[in-house]
Amino acid sequence: MKIANRKPAGQPEEGIRRAPGKAEIAAARARLAGRLRTTPVLAPGELQARLGARIALKCEQFQVTGAFKARGAMNAVSSLGGGERERGVATHSSGNHGAALAWAARTAGVRATIVVPENAVASKRAAIRRFGGEIVDCGPAQTDREAALAEVVARAGATVVHPYDDARVIAGQATATIEFLEAEPRLRRLLVPVGGGGLATGAILAARWLRREVEIIGVEPAGADDTRRSLAAGERVALERVDTLADGLRAQVGVATFPVLREGLSDLVTVADAEILAAMRWAFETMKLVIEPSAATVLAALLAGKAAAGPAPTGAILSGGNIDFSGEAWQRMRALP
Amino acid sequence: MKIANRKPAGQPEEGIRRAPGKAEIAAARARLAGRLRTTPVLAPGELQARLGARIALKCEQFQVTGAFKARGAMNAVSSLGGGERERGVATHSSGNHGAALAWAARTAGVRATIVVPENAVASKRAAIRRFGGEIVDCGPAQTDREAALAEVVARAGATVVHPYDDARVIAGQATATIEFLEAEPRLRRLLVPVGGGGLATGAILAARWLRREVEIIGVEPAGADDTRRSLAAGERVALERVDTLADGLRAQVGVATFPVLREGLSDLVTVADAEILAAMRWAFETMKLVIEPSAATVLAALLAGKAAAGPAPTGAILSGGNIDFSGEAWQRMRALP
Repeated sequence: MKIANRKPAGQPEEGIRRAPGKAEIAAARARLAGRLRTTPVLAPGELQARLGARIALKCEQFQVTGAFKARGAMNAVSSLGGGERERGVATHSSGNHGAALAWAARTAGVRATIVVPENAVASKRAAIRRFGGEIVDCGPAQTDREAALAEVVARAGATVVHPYDDARVIAGQATATIEFLEAEPRLRRLLVPVGGGGLATGAILAARWLRREVEIIGVEPAGADDTRRSLAAGERVALERVDTLADGLRAQVGVATFPVLREGLSDLVTVADAEILAAMRWAFETMKLVIEPSAATVLAALLAGKAAAGPAPTGAILSGGNIDFSGEAWQRMRALP
Repeated sequence: MKIANRKPAGQPEEGIRRAPGKAEIAAARARLAGRLRTTPVLAPGELQARLGARIALKCEQFQVTGAFKARGAMNAVSSLGGGERERGVATHSSGNHGAALAWAARTAGVRATIVVPENAVASKRAAIRRFGGEIVDCGPAQTDREAALAEVVARAGATVVHPYDDARVIAGQATATIEFLEAEPRLRRLLVPVGGGGLATGAILAARWLRREVEIIGVEPAGADDTRRSLAAGERVALERVDTLADGLRAQVGVATFPVLREGLSDLVTVADAEILAAMRWAFETMKLVIEPSAATVLAALLAGKAAAGPAPTGAILSGGNIDFSGEAWQRMRALP
């Protein structure tokens, strides 16, 4: 054993909180082949009829765990060394990342501890448990989450897998766009939801890796528009208050993701919750697609004319389909006229 | 104009109430290419994990009008002669066939009149209107429907397009199975919902046309099991009472379809409404697929062990995704524990 290569238990690996390089993206692509689904690309006629242009949809709601998050989580878990595998992984998450990490860890035979705030959506908490994750409850504040996670790390020596500020996670998310651009070689414009920025950063890096000229358009909920403000300010800006039903997009843009987004996004647009709910309902009723509010943002941007549907061949990533039928988003969507 | 080839206006064409021959199936396939969608085939990992066998799903909820019915309707409308086109088409339908015929007629520039019983599901009535169909209201009884339709035929000379007892319609429905068997050449067992029997008859004839050894398994709601009883009796049996939430499968098996089903079905199984609703909910929550109760029957048969999921490569046709969010099926599904 080369002691020099070991890092102290429980300490985040130096340099992980950064964007991945080309070799890491190539490794993620090779590593995930066969372990994750190549999700289908659909181009619903109803959407084409409404927008006057064919739109290709990358359907990550059909990914394992119901969201693209399985890609980054599986890539991170698969990258662990022997000692790290023994000590397990941990994260704090109120949603899809926690379920994805629990699933990836179980698949790899690794223990996962997920710190879950008490206000998390019931169905997402249930999913973490279903995929074999050990849940540690905490208060709703960011400081509560971080304190609980620090305790898990101190106790078990677990490796923290951040939901987006992690080169391994971003490289995994990039595979969604690689698959999409391979399935749809003509795409020249791609809409991607932006929360912490992992999926969008992966999209930018994937297009570069494939040497494709593709405009990447970020879409953010108006009630969690820290990326828009950060781009305007030229540095990361934290919101005092986040108010959106798109529960997967409430996180602040990351230290690793922001510089890539600032340089690589062609545009960033915001959509109101009312537009998100209308798009979600339209997806259900007309396209027969189950998508969660975060995924509906890109559809909302197209339907509300915030992003152009043509003439350049356009695609959008539907990021996930995990909704709670007794939750507020579903209730409000159903109550729409 | 060759008068000998004209038939009296308003009279159903002699010989249409029969199963189509091979040339008619070949013609339907050629005619519908490019006018209808080749719907995707999905094989969700969640279903494979639960059943221990890969199941291929032909997703007709993604077909134009949200159901396979567009196939038969478009084939019938496309087969019309010039005089027939001028006089329009008509049918009675409380659901997907009416919407499909309205859509097919509008696409072909033909007028469609749909007789709709007053107890029809609101969303399906709205779909008929959205696709440009002219609605004639009638009472809920079969005799009310037939009287209203006869009046339309007498007034306008419209050509009646029956939802399943029509060689043109059956030939159109056969294209769903042709596409499925071409996309999944290894399939040896296929589950198909049975109402009037058009889709299942089309499946049997499609397998023969392609010279494939495929077992076709019909699935019927227990509360509308006239086909099961008819097969047992050796002749068509009418139910005194139909009681199922699978609103697309309430019709009696047809004069044209029954002989083909009797000869060609390998098995026919029934599923209870509770099993249908559980399958529909599982499709929504776990597979992220919007399917209507009629489509959920085949999934219910697999999940409840009424039909074997393996070892022979198995497929199922999800017939449609048109559900009413304020309707009883949806409400009862949501109320499941």
